[in-house]
Amino acid sequence: MVYLAGPGHGGPALVAAGYLEGTYSEVYPRVGQDERGLRQLFRQFSAPGGIPSHVSVTTPGSIHEGGELGYVLVHAFGAVMDNPDLIALAVVGDGEAETAPLEGSWKGISFLNPERDGAVLPILHLNGAKISGPTVLARKDPGEVRALLTGHGYEVIEVEGDDLPGMHHRFAAALAHAWGKIRAIQAAARGGEWDGSRPRWPLIILRTPKGWTGPESVDGVRVTGTWRSHQVPLSGVKGNEEHLRVLETWLRSYRPEELFDDDGAPTAIVRSANPDGALRMSANLHANGGLLTRDLDVPDFRDYAIAVSHPGAGRAESTRKLGELMRDLYRDNPDRFRLFCPDETNSNRLGAVFEASDRGFAERTDPDDVGISRNGRVMEVLSEHNCHGWLEGYTLTGRHGWFATYEAFAMVSASQTVQHAKWLEEAEKIPWRAKVPSLNILLTSTAWRNDHNGFSHQGPGLIQNVITQRGTVGRVYFPPDANCLLSVADHCLRSRSYLNLVVIDKQPQLQWLPIEQAIDHCARGAGVWSWAGTDDGSADPDIVLACAGDVVTMETVAAAAILREHLPHFRTRVVNVVDLMTLTRRKDHPHGMDETRFKELFTDHVDVVFAFHGYPGAVHQLVHGRPDADRFRVRGFIEEGTTTTPFDMVVRNRASRYHLVMDALNNARRTPPGASDLKAWCQQRLAEHETYVIEHLEDMPDIREWVLGDWADQG
Amino acid sequence: MVYLAGPGHGGPALVAAGYLEGTYSEVYPRVGQDERGLRQLFRQFSAPGGIPSHVSVTTPGSIHEGGELGYVLVHAFGAVMDNPDLIALAVVGDGEAETAPLEGSWKGISFLNPERDGAVLPILHLNGAKISGPTVLARKDPGEVRALLTGHGYEVIEVEGDDLPGMHHRFAAALAHAWGKIRAIQAAARGGEWDGSRPRWPLIILRTPKGWTGPESVDGVRVTGTWRSHQVPLSGVKGNEEHLRVLETWLRSYRPEELFDDDGAPTAIVRSANPDGALRMSANLHANGGLLTRDLDVPDFRDYAIAVSHPGAGRAESTRKLGELMRDLYRDNPDRFRLFCPDETNSNRLGAVFEASDRGFAERTDPDDVGISRNGRVMEVLSEHNCHGWLEGYTLTGRHGWFATYEAFAMVSASQTVQHAKWLEEAEKIPWRAKVPSLNILLTSTAWRNDHNGFSHQGPGLIQNVITQRGTVGRVYFPPDANCLLSVADHCLRSRSYLNLVVIDKQPQLQWLPIEQAIDHCARGAGVWSWAGTDDGSADPDIVLACAGDVVTMETVAAAAILREHLPHFRTRVVNVVDLMTLTRRKDHPHGMDETRFKELFTDHVDVVFAFHGYPGAVHQLVHGRPDADRFRVRGFIEEGTTTTPFDMVVRNRASRYHLVMDALNNARRTPPGASDLKAWCQQRLAEHETYVIEHLEDMPDIREWVLGDWADQG
Repeated sequence: MVYLAGPGHGGPALVAAGYLEGTYSEVYPRVGQDERGLRQLFRQFSAPGGIPSHVSVTTPGSIHEGGELGYVLVHAFGAVMDNPDLIALAVVGDGEAETAPLEGSWKGISFLNPERDGAVLPILHLNGAKISGPTVLARKDPGEVRALLTGHGYEVIEVEGDDLPGMHHRFAAALAHAWGKIRAIQAAARGGEWDGSRPRWPLIILRTPKGWTGPESVDGVRVTGTWRSHQVPLSGVKGNEEHLRVLETWLRSYRPEELFDDDGAPTAIVRSANPDGALRMSANLHANGGLLTRDLDVPDFRDYAIAVSHPGAGRAESTRKLGELMRDLYRDNPDRFRLFCPDETNSNRLGAVFEASDRGFAERTDPDDVGISRNGRVMEVLSEHNCHGWLEGYTLTGRHGWFATYEAFAMVSASQTVQHAKWLEEAEKIPWRAKVPSLNILLTSTAWRNDHNGFSHQGPGLIQNVITQRGTVGRVYFPPDANCLLSVADHCLRSRSYLNLVVIDKQPQLQWLPIEQAIDHCARGAGVWSWAGTDDGSADPDIVLACAGDVVTMETVAAAAILREHLPHFRTRVVNVVDLMTLTRRKDHPHGMDETRFKELFTDHVDVVFAFHGYPGAVHQLVHGRPDADRFRVRGFIEEGTTTTPFDMVVRNRASRYHLVMDALNNARRTPPGASDLKAWCQQRLAEHETYVIEHLEDMPDIREWVLGDWADQG
Repeated sequence: MVYLAGPGHGGPALVAAGYLEGTYSEVYPRVGQDERGLRQLFRQFSAPGGIPSHVSVTTPGSIHEGGELGYVLVHAFGAVMDNPDLIALAVVGDGEAETAPLEGSWKGISFLNPERDGAVLPILHLNGAKISGPTVLARKDPGEVRALLTGHGYEVIEVEGDDLPGMHHRFAAALAHAWGKIRAIQAAARGGEWDGSRPRWPLIILRTPKGWTGPESVDGVRVTGTWRSHQVPLSGVKGNEEHLRVLETWLRSYRPEELFDDDGAPTAIVRSANPDGALRMSANLHANGGLLTRDLDVPDFRDYAIAVSHPGAGRAESTRKLGELMRDLYRDNPDRFRLFCPDETNSNRLGAVFEASDRGFAERTDPDDVGISRNGRVMEVLSEHNCHGWLEGYTLTGRHGWFATYEAFAMVSASQTVQHAKWLEEAEKIPWRAKVPSLNILLTSTAWRNDHNGFSHQGPGLIQNVITQRGTVGRVYFPPDANCLLSVADHCLRSRSYLNLVVIDKQPQLQWLPIEQAIDHCARGAGVWSWAGTDDGSADPDIVLACAGDVVTMETVAAAAILREHLPHFRTRVVNVVDLMTLTRRKDHPHGMDETRFKELFTDHVDVVFAFHGYPGAVHQLVHGRPDADRFRVRGFIEEGTTTTPFDMVVRNRASRYHLVMDALNNARRTPPGASDLKAWCQQRLAEHETYVIEHLEDMPDIREWVLGDWADQG
């Protein structure tokens, strides 16, 4: 069993249990099982320089940080997928139970297969209150709570009271019953006696008073059973004799003289309750998943390459190639690879996976259904929170996977992304935590290609959040075509303990590099595309045209082509950036280019027109500190969007090929002869586009306004 | 009634209804009730330059964009709060029903008061499928679904079938029953016949086949009742004769000749179904809430000011003052102001509101409870999604409020923040949409002061997302003290259609400005604090020390004091920034300072050491394009955190007063005599801190490593 503690300030219970089991002292020898160690254990708790009051990365036996509430069940379900012998005991606090992510996660059992997956045993611990008031579930009619969880599909077992030792016995009986029920379900399923319907998994509702066994009242005010016992029930122990007396009485009520010997070590009566070695929940190997991680059997990604005779030779849906690679990952790794996606696997062109696996679904299927069954392992649920959280639980227990989602809606689970990055950042510092497979996020259906949806579907915001993570963890990739995507994906699948954000569109797009060139390009992270520019390296270019992101790469190559055609002697250098973090200084990120390399690409004085997939500010902040960073003029998504064509999108956001040409000429080191003619030509092209849009749309005046808006200052 | 359409691609139904009711043509005269208008209506649908396939800002009668799924119920509940006569009919699609935000929002009725609030009538429309597969709720046993919703507290009414006109009659009966039930609950509550218990509000489950009344099968494959009818059931109408025939048969099955006259206008039979004027759901004034908005009765914020005899004279919990202002807003505006907060109102020092209003709660309350009752109007639910969404619904229907939350956990609802900003940005362009009260977000319990929690509670990420919103909508404020907070809050409360992000800590903090100075400072958005520096304006300063954010402002003032004491002839200018967007160029944001003002504060060539509350990159990207932006050296939160003291936090993130002094000396225009002594002194202070931390923590070796890490390059 692995134990996941949802309740935030319930953390001390897990730390204490790990200490009593001996694990804590094994991983932190300074917190030994003696008086000095006990003192250390107490002093570090929720104190500066110590550990937080919730479970965290520092807690042995945990894969779940209790800081931000709501994710205990998604982590539990992710942990047991493809782990048939694991039971995840997940305690849900009644505060946490009010959060949306938690409420959305009960349905994990609708996706669990008792043959192949382990089980989650949720314990809904209703102690009645959160920080400063009662909770919804604690104050609802108990029959309603039972109906709610029965409706989610569980067999509800209830334990309530405050009598001791009666409660211990009743709770032990409940656990035994639940365990028996789980094993019976699994035995039937694994013994061929299963009708295929979704089992009614057990769930325990535990009702105890908040602050149970603590001081009943303080200063004449009731504490036990109320929100007043949250965190600090006795605030005046330093100056108030009575408080100190209450504290002592309270702590002595646990009879420490029976539990600890004269040296402060747990006595035999305590130690005898501990199982051995990895059976201790605080030493469960699944909670240090790096120890159980086996490399993926990754097929040679070159086998999926697209033949590219010359740059821009043809169009292809790049993500289809990744789908084919994933299909074979499913075939070759039936126990340790999964794709998690909110109902968009086909939409995202990853549908080849269905040749190897159905969607997993434990509820009823119909004869008309396609590619969905209880045996499926492609995880589709229309919930970014579930997808992201399941993958977190899956990777933290040592398995591999991807979360693929629409770019804009990656913000739905942005907080999970940030919190998981924090977990990985802190785990890096803890020697006993082994590295785990990276969390790989594929963003597709991007801002630039949402012809039928529109503004709500156009938002590259998650990039803004990932670039601020520590260099030890955060990575952002913009493969410009299928072969680069394959190379990047291969790298991500082999990496450990990173957060890899990969951004690429799903629509047919121009292909640029043959596979060997793609590999070399991705390994460097950024490079000059000499075939695209006119820069022969013999002298400084007049302008550097840089790009990161597929659509803007196309615009950049087109801009360079226009310049080459109209002004053949104008020296244009085209730089494509796959690995965004190469732009930063190496002191800020390990992928940062050294100064020499940076100058090779961008010089240290020539202006750079940078077409970027996301918000321009992302690049502005990354190049800060580079030589003369002011010369970077970034075009990108400036929050202009609607239901429109990709080309109209780049026009609206002033990142079209014509804008880039004008930017290049306006910022070049020298003004070539013919520059003003070419600028006029670009303006003409844009005017034609505008005319086309207006005619096409007839008399929609707002469109006209949008297209014309702010045109004047384009100069 | 106001209608909120949850299902994404269910949008056309609402557009069509608005058109048939005549509203659409009233607000878009080009889409008239004639053949040309019909053509326009059809052509614009889900086409470039047109409208998205979901309900959007452009849809009259809507306050809910169906693009990002999950928020239909939170918007509905927010809309009916303090709107006793409004019923929000909220259709939940069974795809949307899988999202976490939606699952977390059924419990809105646990916070609704039938005396004072209106009602939400949810219609869970289970048509069985989402984009490419079945849904959980559609495939669960109907008894389980009933149990689930009964458990949430609803009276479940079920309508199922595909027979016509039988379904129309049965659904009409269900609506009538639900309406009668709602009115009965309200009549009892308002007539004094209510026992105070939470009513069992009605909810309708509607089960119809997906694609109902569309083509049953296409190319021999079943379409109706399956995911294949999602979006485009007939893909080949342009080239496939059979598809075209099926399309014609399908559309003719609605008997258009009875519904439209020869000019294409709806016939009397259609028009007779429409109610008049604002009773048409598409013309509901609540869905254009700016028309109903009444200014808040805002007390004079000067009355809450803290007396400040001189800068730094004393400490105060600044947010307490805002709490007092809010208390009086509650008293003076009992029908149109609410605070929404995830169980942290007291923790965030806003507890004065409880002098004017309890927390609102419709479930059982106990005698031991404090400040919570069914009559309360302070909204505490441990769900950022509910808080944010309720406030959105509340403001979009013309009322005022704040969402107050822990800074790090603002990322939980970041996607809602972004999507609401998009709504406001687009609404700005639509002449018939009146401006609504701003969405005000207070971030407190910030990254710099989380002594007892730690790294999971330290994340200023939302700033990264708000600064990328359009200048018409996004605003970010860092009031450095209570009086500035009052001035900023007053401005936010009076503003319209903005997204106001206000960031300030809740702990006791130094107070800097008397109220009149604070007002002037906030009106300018940024200013020189001449009392803090040594710059007399007679010449360029040697360095500019800038700051935005309370903790880093304290460090900056301290750094300036150290410099003044040790090097009195070193010219230091201190600039405090309250309104972050003043840093941008005016072409990028209307708050951007003009060049003259920018130079007055920052010069155009003196280096600037900028201490920032959030990630340094935020400032780097905002000052891009300003004269010699490279000279801005920004210190801020660089993702270093743990359970520790505020001072240790600024040390870890290299933003302490000592770091700022060394930065100032390293980047000053001239090296003053004594500079190296002062730098050595600073290093000594930091070494003492390190020693103190290490001694205090005895033998925790990892702490030592953290404090010492990367120290070498501070040189």
